[in-house]
Amino acid sequence: MHQITLAGRLHHRAALLCAAIVFAVAFSVAATTSPVRALNVNVTHYTLDNGMQVVVVPDHRSPTVTHMVWYKVGSADEPQGKAGIAHFLEHLMFKGTQKIGRNEFSRIVKRNGGQDNAFTSRDFTAYFQRIAKDRLDLVMGMEADRMANLQLTDEDVIPERAVVQEERRSRTDNNPSSLLSEQLTAQLYMVHPYRKPVIGWMSEVHQLTREDALNFYRQFYTPQNAILVVAGDVTADEVRKLADKHFAPLKNTANPGPRARTQEPKQIAARRVEMKDPRVGSPSFRRFYLAPSFAKREGINPHALDVLAEALGAGSVSRLYRELVVKRKLAAYAGSWYSGDALDNGSFGVVAAPVGGRSLADVEAAVDEVLKDVIENGLTREELDRAKNKLMADAVYALDSQFRLAYNFGVALTTGQKVSDVTGWAKNIEQVTGEDVLKAARFVLRKKRSVTGLLTRAEPVQN
Amino acid sequence: MHQITLAGRLHHRAALLCAAIVFAVAFSVAATTSPVRALNVNVTHYTLDNGMQVVVVPDHRSPTVTHMVWYKVGSADEPQGKAGIAHFLEHLMFKGTQKIGRNEFSRIVKRNGGQDNAFTSRDFTAYFQRIAKDRLDLVMGMEADRMANLQLTDEDVIPERAVVQEERRSRTDNNPSSLLSEQLTAQLYMVHPYRKPVIGWMSEVHQLTREDALNFYRQFYTPQNAILVVAGDVTADEVRKLADKHFAPLKNTANPGPRARTQEPKQIAARRVEMKDPRVGSPSFRRFYLAPSFAKREGINPHALDVLAEALGAGSVSRLYRELVVKRKLAAYAGSWYSGDALDNGSFGVVAAPVGGRSLADVEAAVDEVLKDVIENGLTREELDRAKNKLMADAVYALDSQFRLAYNFGVALTTGQKVSDVTGWAKNIEQVTGEDVLKAARFVLRKKRSVTGLLTRAEPVQN
Repeated sequence: MHQITLAGRLHHRAALLCAAIVFAVAFSVAATTSPVRALNVNVTHYTLDNGMQVVVVPDHRSPTVTHMVWYKVGSADEPQGKAGIAHFLEHLMFKGTQKIGRNEFSRIVKRNGGQDNAFTSRDFTAYFQRIAKDRLDLVMGMEADRMANLQLTDEDVIPERAVVQEERRSRTDNNPSSLLSEQLTAQLYMVHPYRKPVIGWMSEVHQLTREDALNFYRQFYTPQNAILVVAGDVTADEVRKLADKHFAPLKNTANPGPRARTQEPKQIAARRVEMKDPRVGSPSFRRFYLAPSFAKREGINPHALDVLAEALGAGSVSRLYRELVVKRKLAAYAGSWYSGDALDNGSFGVVAAPVGGRSLADVEAAVDEVLKDVIENGLTREELDRAKNKLMADAVYALDSQFRLAYNFGVALTTGQKVSDVTGWAKNIEQVTGEDVLKAARFVLRKKRSVTGLLTRAEPVQN
Repeated sequence: MHQITLAGRLHHRAALLCAAIVFAVAFSVAATTSPVRALNVNVTHYTLDNGMQVVVVPDHRSPTVTHMVWYKVGSADEPQGKAGIAHFLEHLMFKGTQKIGRNEFSRIVKRNGGQDNAFTSRDFTAYFQRIAKDRLDLVMGMEADRMANLQLTDEDVIPERAVVQEERRSRTDNNPSSLLSEQLTAQLYMVHPYRKPVIGWMSEVHQLTREDALNFYRQFYTPQNAILVVAGDVTADEVRKLADKHFAPLKNTANPGPRARTQEPKQIAARRVEMKDPRVGSPSFRRFYLAPSFAKREGINPHALDVLAEALGAGSVSRLYRELVVKRKLAAYAGSWYSGDALDNGSFGVVAAPVGGRSLADVEAAVDEVLKDVIENGLTREELDRAKNKLMADAVYALDSQFRLAYNFGVALTTGQKVSDVTGWAKNIEQVTGEDVLKAARFVLRKKRSVTGLLTRAEPVQN
């Protein structure tokens, strides 16, 4: 469920870590029928008087905890002209409070044998530490401290702004594939703020000030806008005591208000973006479709989209891979994904790249043939079962990862879902029918709801 | 210079009137060499103590005046989530003050033998009356009154909001060609607020409130943000006395601040939008390129773009028309235009439609051939001279229109230009060289700075 949101959508220093977790889980599972197990954890979920939510996920396999604070704010909540402020503030949250000096936060965590990081997405920003259980009191105190008492001077802000600009430069501006995806996202959403990159537009980032950061901090970093997630060697009582000690006394600094983003108008025209760049090694095709999400279902079963993405293009037994790579020997790779953890619209993507000597046009035509067949005839029974079993097995294996457990609850609660959506995910997958998938495919895979991107190497004379 | 901004960019009740003026002027001029005359009017331009600018353009041919108040605010200045508020406020400005009852404004003008209207664009909003010279005192008083004393209740706002939504429905939503242009504009500008339609996004218009309108009014409708333009049977002294009486006493309610819009990042990829709609009669091709403007020239002579647009695609002697319509009999029409009156980026467009039986692909290929030739070889001497003479003749004929005179000054002063840019326009055109045109063409006509739109009739089975 969360595989896709990790890679490519988040700007966080843990990207490699998360990607490693995800891919290790995904590729280590054999495609056999596994016994279905509900997510067998005793999750506690409650709300403090000041509105802050608390989620406790016991996991006693090792004496460690994953301690996370999630804020219900992301790039899609940014004010006009300040694209990148949510992510910039994430950087600045490490700059210290009265108690903790500049850049000291991470050093303290390390000195106590832990790891820490943070990440920003379109709908959430999260801070976490993985540490020995007996240091939970320490890190919770530190997290509460910076929720309430962040201090910023221009000596903190100006250099860090340059760091963010360099991050943008190296991850996006110097990477043609990232640039193309950025263009596509800005075209997929004509109006909705999901069209902005989380890292922000360079010209707006360039002008972000200390005042911008503090305004955003005061408006959104407040207990009623936050969710504490603790997974690990804890009991609900232990966490409750610590939350009462550290978070319950905090007062709300603002009422962030409803997360009302301008909804995307009806999509009426297929879009294309063709990018030529001298830095491109091999050409590639990708297409993003607007899709329902787990929060806004539009009459579709979003779990059917998870199944569709799996069957269509996740790995070497998927339809796209078998057709384009194995059978026709036309593509070097072909895949699809579904991203449904969003407060507003989700997205569905297909990608493919031609083998040497074959053209993007041929690849696109072949992709369209496969999609047309799926829209008309759906998946085979075998494809359906295999995809469902694979996904359910993934869910089981994901239990191994304490971080993954905590992460899943944080994502859900910040993107309009419930704890039961997480614990019941595997069961929801099991209940997906062929009809569900067919209906979802027909709803989503309409060209006028999509943007297609072609990335090729630049010719010597550019037009 | 202003031909293009009138039709299609403005939402105003005078659209037909202005279009009629423009087209009458444009098509009545024979393409012969006319003596060049500088714009021979004695324009007075000064600023009141409260910051309001005044422009007086004497024109004693008939005892009438064109009285205009321009505000340096348009759709590109709107706050986030309130697309359409600038235009909506324009509607609401007719709803009355303490002195003047709801919808009375226009009735009073009519009773006094005048006409009145208003229009909103991306960079300006303007209100005007055309009336007998001896009623200038009356209408100036009324305009000053509503600049300072607009009153709004929900009984004013809610029904008028429905009117605006219906305007959007009939002009855009029920018009496939307008819908496509709206899509193209939203793709041409990835970031800049010019990407929004002046009429606004339906979902945002739907939520505009009385409070939104009053906030916008107080922030932007203030003397230092306004320009009075009076053309007609007046002297500078007469206008000065009346301006001192009506506008000078007004105090500023706000400082609107610098008009800082997020600038468009470097454009790196050619975009396309393909729209299929059952309401489409005949297919058409159009392409918009990002371009310099008169305010932001980017090292290019924008008058050369006026000349290029004229030579390339204005009328039956233009390059596109001769090639595609006359010679190859491939297109039913073909044209180009340049829109340079903008505070930020301008745009350059080409359009064409195939004759029955010919394809859009052929038309596009032919357009590309013509553009390629212009980029490589520029215009012929004959084309250059003819285009320049035609434009200069247009300027002379435009003097006939009192409204046009006033309008030109208003547009200039709200889009980063000066009075001398208006009076000197014909001379600037005269000075354009073939080299200027070649340089401008090579700068603008690069596919990666463009979005291409194809409009076709929908097939029975849509994908």
